[in-house]
Amino acid sequence: MSLVVQKYGGSSVADAEGIKRVAKRIVEAKRNGHQVVAVVSAMGDTTDELIDLAEQVSPIPAGRELDMLLTAGERISMALLAMAIKNLGHEAQSFTGSQAGVITDSVHNKARIIDVTPGRLRASLEEGNIAIVAGFQGVSQDSKDITTLGRGGSDTTAVALAAALDADVCEIYTDVDGVFTADPRVVKKAKKIDWISFEDMLELAASGSKVLLHRCVEYARRYNIPIHVRSSFSGLPGTWVSNEPQGDQQVEHAIISGVAHDVSEAKVTVVGVPDKPGEAAHIFRAVAEAEINIDMIVQNVSAASTGLTDISFTLPKAEGKKATAALEKIKATVGYDSLRYDDQIAKISLVGAGMKTNPGVTAQFFEALSDAGVNIELISTSEIRISVVTRADDVNEAVRAVHTSFGLDSDSDEAVVYGGTGR
Amino acid sequence: MSLVVQKYGGSSVADAEGIKRVAKRIVEAKRNGHQVVAVVSAMGDTTDELIDLAEQVSPIPAGRELDMLLTAGERISMALLAMAIKNLGHEAQSFTGSQAGVITDSVHNKARIIDVTPGRLRASLEEGNIAIVAGFQGVSQDSKDITTLGRGGSDTTAVALAAALDADVCEIYTDVDGVFTADPRVVKKAKKIDWISFEDMLELAASGSKVLLHRCVEYARRYNIPIHVRSSFSGLPGTWVSNEPQGDQQVEHAIISGVAHDVSEAKVTVVGVPDKPGEAAHIFRAVAEAEINIDMIVQNVSAASTGLTDISFTLPKAEGKKATAALEKIKATVGYDSLRYDDQIAKISLVGAGMKTNPGVTAQFFEALSDAGVNIELISTSEIRISVVTRADDVNEAVRAVHTSFGLDSDSDEAVVYGGTGR
Repeated sequence: MSLVVQKYGGSSVADAEGIKRVAKRIVEAKRNGHQVVAVVSAMGDTTDELIDLAEQVSPIPAGRELDMLLTAGERISMALLAMAIKNLGHEAQSFTGSQAGVITDSVHNKARIIDVTPGRLRASLEEGNIAIVAGFQGVSQDSKDITTLGRGGSDTTAVALAAALDADVCEIYTDVDGVFTADPRVVKKAKKIDWISFEDMLELAASGSKVLLHRCVEYARRYNIPIHVRSSFSGLPGTWVSNEPQGDQQVEHAIISGVAHDVSEAKVTVVGVPDKPGEAAHIFRAVAEAEINIDMIVQNVSAASTGLTDISFTLPKAEGKKATAALEKIKATVGYDSLRYDDQIAKISLVGAGMKTNPGVTAQFFEALSDAGVNIELISTSEIRISVVTRADDVNEAVRAVHTSFGLDSDSDEAVVYGGTGR
Repeated sequence: MSLVVQKYGGSSVADAEGIKRVAKRIVEAKRNGHQVVAVVSAMGDTTDELIDLAEQVSPIPAGRELDMLLTAGERISMALLAMAIKNLGHEAQSFTGSQAGVITDSVHNKARIIDVTPGRLRASLEEGNIAIVAGFQGVSQDSKDITTLGRGGSDTTAVALAAALDADVCEIYTDVDGVFTADPRVVKKAKKIDWISFEDMLELAASGSKVLLHRCVEYARRYNIPIHVRSSFSGLPGTWVSNEPQGDQQVEHAIISGVAHDVSEAKVTVVGVPDKPGEAAHIFRAVAEAEINIDMIVQNVSAASTGLTDISFTLPKAEGKKATAALEKIKATVGYDSLRYDDQIAKISLVGAGMKTNPGVTAQFFEALSDAGVNIELISTSEIRISVVTRADDVNEAVRAVHTSFGLDSDSDEAVVYGGTGR
């Protein structure tokens, strides 16, 4: 008997009707002879409503208490889902993260899973039950306090349980049909990808694709758990993410897997930095100590006449203020001229393992952008990804141009439902 | 340093403003030098909303899952309350029933507390924290499943924690000023009782007074925990419930503590029961097996001519159908004539330890009813209580007449805020 772990996002269980629809889908998997563990997010906007309540009583809610508060969301959806399944004549039991054995570190609001001890789940499955598990939450190893895993945490819960239970597959149900070659809201002719490697998926996730989060894919790769991303509405096959394509999974052996874009970042430029050893280290130590995650870093060649250089980096817009404040503090010691802050940027990334063996990809990418009249401000590359920063206004046109240039356009306009993926 | 356990009902924490007000009150107790444990119910109508959701996905929600669902309510209110307290500059930690060590049996939806192991609470208090605890919930000893204590469960949580922590007092904050000599909505001249014995309070609770529930008072009496029922809105001293009045607690040494009434019951009469040994046992065995809690039982003297008698009992209206169905099944074996069901009744009870030594009380009670033109249908008595069943239409007039007759009327009309007390 195979074991399937399924995950349903908040939009799939937004109301009683959604919960009943999901219950039917779970029961179908059970009827097909699988053992089923279903991980569920909070219903619809519950999390945002709880955060709103928290802000009404405290401008800076304490992490421990915020986690206690937010975990009420999954408690509601998982209990309702278990009831709905029992109402269809099947046995189901719901488990909190703690009951399911999701052990984390003690970093509230963005805890990391450090162990999974699914003894109660196993026992429940062996009794013939469908096990429903609260996503997004765990219990800290040291303090036994309730923790949450941060945005996209339910996907990580599902993959971690799939690994601990040695599941055959982890199905991530969402409100889109799978992973696309580009955001279908921007590129009407974007195609659903039938199979994609962990590596390419990791790069897409890091580049702005929101269907799966980086952390979840990383976890799946480490434990070699195939992920099947699919729609909880349509029931069609979605996108498989794994090491190797299996069976009838179509692989087009395209050079490029997809085009991702991201408009959530801003660019900071430190102007007039003395070009001597240790200056860059000084700057990024200051940024790191402010606990800011930076993305791209570019240092220009210094002008020979002045011995000064500019250093630019990108970071989430939300952390812009913190970063510039941290840099102002070290202005005197570093001796740079000025700071520039720009939040009207977009990042466009081309991802595909095929580019390793196709040296023409970079040139074609830049030509496509140039033909579309899009100016490139920063460039950064990995072995299987090229990213550029452009003006935010240019992003849609740029993505479409690149998508067409690499032959990714679908022959027909695919009809897709697109939205957020819950958490 | 004294230890105070406080309990706040759902109406006290109905919204963000309510939570902030309660936070201030808790901090005040802390500032006055007490260690404080605050037990909190779910916000306002949360529980009803969750039950409504449950009914949308399943007509008969499974007990285990319903408990999982409902306990989300306190999780929300307690986390928000802890945040609000921290926002006032004091340290607070919230604890679920399970974390607070509230161990129950496995009867979902109406579990009983069988042990309290408050190790984590003690540690948190000793670190200087205010401890916030979810009322109404616990964890079952055997299955480790989440349980709820049923209606009024938060009061029981508070008293049980007060007992386990050897608290000096258990303060029950509600939306009324205390326990009154009658329901102030019916009797405008009802007086707040300053002190009442556990025994009298138990009888009032059993007779329809809703301020404190029977189970909570029973627990407090067993462990000798003084209860102080008071308003979370006014801050005035309320009603003390204990073995003996203390300090300046006013005791008027009245014969009668109060008049309670209850319109939630119905009356079943089994007509024409053969008057021979075992028939009554047969009837009440059938009712007990249907898990129906009955209240008063009256058997008339049998008519000599027929050898038949009538047996009447009262029970919650909600269980009327179940009871009559159970009795229909045994009609042939018992051989009674017919069943009568009447849900237009009211129960009026006079409570007071003083009646033990005042033989005239019963007569005065009946005279007061008679003068008010109220007919008595059933009578039942305990050592410190007399209850009668009347027509439901007569109840308000009857309560007022009895209240006046026993000199309980206040000299002035007291202004009171009255409503539900949460759970």
